[in-house]
Amino acid sequence: MTKGKFITFEGPDGSGKTTVSKMVCARLEQMGIPVRYSREPGGSRIAEKIRDIILDPENTDMDARCEALLYAASRRQHLVEIVLPSLAEGTHVICDRFVDSSAAYQGYGRQIGVDEVLEMNRFATGGMMPDRTIFLDVPASLGLERIRLNARETDRMDSESMEFHQKVYEGYQKVAEKAGSRMVRIDASRSLDEVTEDALAAVLELIHG
Amino acid sequence: MTKGKFITFEGPDGSGKTTVSKMVCARLEQMGIPVRYSREPGGSRIAEKIRDIILDPENTDMDARCEALLYAASRRQHLVEIVLPSLAEGTHVICDRFVDSSAAYQGYGRQIGVDEVLEMNRFATGGMMPDRTIFLDVPASLGLERIRLNARETDRMDSESMEFHQKVYEGYQKVAEKAGSRMVRIDASRSLDEVTEDALAAVLELIHG
Repeated sequence: MTKGKFITFEGPDGSGKTTVSKMVCARLEQMGIPVRYSREPGGSRIAEKIRDIILDPENTDMDARCEALLYAASRRQHLVEIVLPSLAEGTHVICDRFVDSSAAYQGYGRQIGVDEVLEMNRFATGGMMPDRTIFLDVPASLGLERIRLNARETDRMDSESMEFHQKVYEGYQKVAEKAGSRMVRIDASRSLDEVTEDALAAVLELIHG
Repeated sequence: MTKGKFITFEGPDGSGKTTVSKMVCARLEQMGIPVRYSREPGGSRIAEKIRDIILDPENTDMDARCEALLYAASRRQHLVEIVLPSLAEGTHVICDRFVDSSAAYQGYGRQIGVDEVLEMNRFATGGMMPDRTIFLDVPASLGLERIRLNARETDRMDSESMEFHQKVYEGYQKVAEKAGSRMVRIDASRSLDEVTEDALAAVLELIHG
């Protein structure tokens, strides 16, 4: 039996990650391809409890390194409980966010430093990286504008300053430069249909190799 | 103004850490010495929320590295919110558990490896270590016997196997060997009064040093 592929979706808030990744997942299911959808932080019982602490808008006094450690804790539990068993049984996993989010948000956005954040994350992941990452590239301002238009309930991360989200955007650009062929960059300022088609094509290329 | 001293209490479950550290703290207060009592995991609002996840007896499926990351997250928040501001204003801090607990419980008890656990913890602490650590040395079997006799409500860590607690005990011995003069080992199989007197003496020696 072939192992499943581990595919992650990344991008700033409002880039459409959740919508696009779910649509890609649905399309794969329609094609009879075994796939499991999940998300970070969260995705398992314990990981969702950690997610609640991270995103609680009341926790404005959370230290940046504490936040990074909580993301890594949630990541570890989700990896061990959901991702690895699914891949082992031949199911592909589509995951909304992974280590690249910590590099962009905590490493660059919070300015902890990307090398330190990635090293700490290796404790959580054992060095495991996605087979392919779909990077939905959208300027921070457009992303936040979309969140406002959709009247989505804002969590603690959404409520951060424009300056923070701009640093996250720049962080993603640097992450993409280093990631090489693992990361497929898609212009996510276009229509949802266009973005989904491109993302699906990049995923199918990986799966059908 | 002189900075406060950071004093931690360590030892296996049932070694009397909580009781002895609180009694030492009360004695210091009686002597007019400015001191703040705290504990890990927890000690601040966010850190206590993390504590609830760690110790919830329902979370039997928690991965060892997730557990280690949650302890470190709680540690970071507690350090930044409670310990550092107190020390800066000249108040001594007495803390029930710190990094040595992660070395003993996750590094040795869970067998993640002490070096990896300590390196990850440096992300949380920035390398900060206690000025003095009181190590209440008691065999694992006697510690667990005390917990049973006191009918204390058991949490997820207490409920671990005897084999786990034996590994933690051996881990503490190795931690103590490496810690050198920072760690003062006290035979905690004796009466509470004797142990408290010795612990108080070791703390006063540091403070008046």
